[in-house]
Amino acid sequence: MLKPLGDRVLVEPLEPEAKTPGGIYLPEAAQEAPREGKVVAVGPGRVTDKGELIPTGVKAGDIVTYTKYGGNEIKIDDKEYLLVDSHSLLAVRED
Amino acid sequence: MLKPLGDRVLVEPLEPEAKTPGGIYLPEAAQEAPREGKVVAVGPGRVTDKGELIPTGVKAGDIVTYTKYGGNEIKIDDKEYLLVDSHSLLAVRED
Amino acid sequence: MLKPLGDRVLVEPLEPEAKTPGGIYLPEAAQEAPREGKVVAVGPGRVTDKGELIPTGVKAGDIVTYTKYGGNEIKIDDKEYLLVDSHSLLAVRED
Amino acid sequence: MLKPLGDRVLVEPLEPEAKTPGGIYLPEAAQEAPREGKVVAVGPGRVTDKGELIPTGVKAGDIVTYTKYGGNEIKIDDKEYLLVDSHSLLAVRED
Amino acid sequence: MLKPLGDRVLVEPLEPEAKTPGGIYLPEAAQEAPREGKVVAVGPGRVTDKGELIPTGVKAGDIVTYTKYGGNEIKIDDKEYLLVDSHSLLAVRED
Amino acid sequence: MLKPLGDRVLVEPLEPEAKTPGGIYLPEAAQEAPREGKVVAVGPGRVTDKGELIPTGVKAGDIVTYTKYGGNEIKIDDKEYLLVDSHSLLAVRED
Amino acid sequence: MLKPLGDRVLVEPLEPEAKTPGGIYLPEAAQEAPREGKVVAVGPGRVTDKGELIPTGVKAGDIVTYTKYGGNEIKIDDKEYLLVDSHSLLAVRED
Repeated sequence: MLKPLGDRVLVEPLEPEAKTPGGIYLPEAAQEAPREGKVVAVGPGRVTDKGELIPTGVKAGDIVTYTKYGGNEIKIDDKEYLLVDSHSLLAVRED
Repeated sequence: MLKPLGDRVLVEPLEPEAKTPGGIYLPEAAQEAPREGKVVAVGPGRVTDKGELIPTGVKAGDIVTYTKYGGNEIKIDDKEYLLVDSHSLLAVRED
Repeated sequence: MLKPLGDRVLVEPLEPEAKTPGGIYLPEAAQEAPREGKVVAVGPGRVTDKGELIPTGVKAGDIVTYTKYGGNEIKIDDKEYLLVDSHSLLAVRED
Repeated sequence: MLKPLGDRVLVEPLEPEAKTPGGIYLPEAAQEAPREGKVVAVGPGRVTDKGELIPTGVKAGDIVTYTKYGGNEIKIDDKEYLLVDSHSLLAVRED
Repeated sequence: MLKPLGDRVLVEPLEPEAKTPGGIYLPEAAQEAPREGKVVAVGPGRVTDKGELIPTGVKAGDIVTYTKYGGNEIKIDDKEYLLVDSHSLLAVRED
Repeated sequence: MLKPLGDRVLVEPLEPEAKTPGGIYLPEAAQEAPREGKVVAVGPGRVTDKGELIPTGVKAGDIVTYTKYGGNEIKIDDKEYLLVDSHSLLAVRED
Repeated sequence: MLKPLGDRVLVEPLEPEAKTPGGIYLPEAAQEAPREGKVVAVGPGRVTDKGELIPTGVKAGDIVTYTKYGGNEIKIDDKEYLLVDSHSLLAVRED
């Protein structure tokens, strides 16, 4: 498996079809429109100039809203994933 | 529900029609013109290079003036919301 | 009323006509030309990476010279105001 | 009178004609060419992220060389002045 | 051999052909698409304004996903390598 | 005379003709090509956010190589000088 | 001789012809392609906002790989050299 570096997060995009009743719908118009996905793996965080480690603020299993802008698409075993910078994570679903 | 990450704030835009007598009117000309909305949920804040958490300065229920510039539109249960960076919050209504 | 957030200042523009003899005249040519206005409300200030609060340096009632660049126009009860970033405040009138 | 804010300086431009023999001549070609002027009033200085106040380094009465780039022209009692950011002050005349 | 300076990493690109069953496939469309490679040598890290050394977070032998953007191609004994800034390293393979 | 402000340095350009045998020749093609000059006066240095003064690293009389990019041309008593930011000083001649 | 200032390094480019068998070959296509050279002289380093001196990390005699981007070409006694910012040094040869 892949372990993200820095403050990156490996995200498995949720199928837009899968989130209909009561779920969150995100416009597909713009390429930069926010999307939803499931966090698969999380990097250690950002190391500041002070040598402090700032964690990403999310954990594996979280359903996050993110912008594709700043993310890198990769395929693992024919499945599409994104490596998203934690600054591109906008929100997390709460139950 | 959605929990914003970082210093983002989830805002429900107020209908321009709803704010007539004595209310605040905001020009609709430019896309970047400031708008009013109600804060629905608030992120924990911005973590600085020192590891300090700077809160967003607003709370759920606040009526805020914000610029759409830097905000991300999302739909939850067919209702439109914005995830706004706290730097795009300009002012809060006081009673 | 509106309470500015961060280091923003709510400014009521002075009518150019109102400032003739002995007053300060500001060229109207460029959109970015400095203007004069009266401070109506003041945000708490800018929070630094250290968590320190840097106040805006002006107070309600001050007559300030500001650049419109970086300011946001809003209307309150049909009157035009500006939410100006404190970095766009250039000077304050002294008696 | 006007009191500059931040690290701005109020400058009264010297007439190019006034500085001929032994004086400093500055090319007029480019708009950004440096000019000479007399400091009329000085802002308190720049407040850093540490909360430290860094003074402008000049005082009223100083004859300074400055670039107009980054300065704002204003008129006080029909006389032209500039509000110049202290970073645009290049040098000061020494006797 | 080459010793990278700063927070740079010397990477030997993996042949796209070599990573088929169960491996990670990366789209070749865009020039900036992420690629996989083997870390050959690692710089000491980034020196912060405090004089602190922040290591790169990877070690020789690691299989990393990286973006070519920000990398410099060089040839050593007719073999192609990349000197990649550690900020361009996205993830590392875990067994 | 002029006293530079901040980390600026007043430089008297050396005539390209004057530096032929054994001297340093600098290409004249590009406007940004480095030039040689003699340091006439030196500003106090750059004040950091901590309030620390970082001196320019050169002294009056030094022969420096500099880039004109970032420098401001001025004339004093009909002689051309440059006010150069210390970041535009590349090297100093050693005997 | 020239003493580089700040974190600059004086580099004597190696002739591409001189580095054939077992040596490092660098593509000549792009202007920004990395090159090899010999360090002739080294500046004291970069002074940070903390007043700390960060040395360049190389010494005279080192064979370095560098990008010409960010470097300044100069001629000393008819021989071409480069003044390269230490950030443009990518790697150093190890025996």
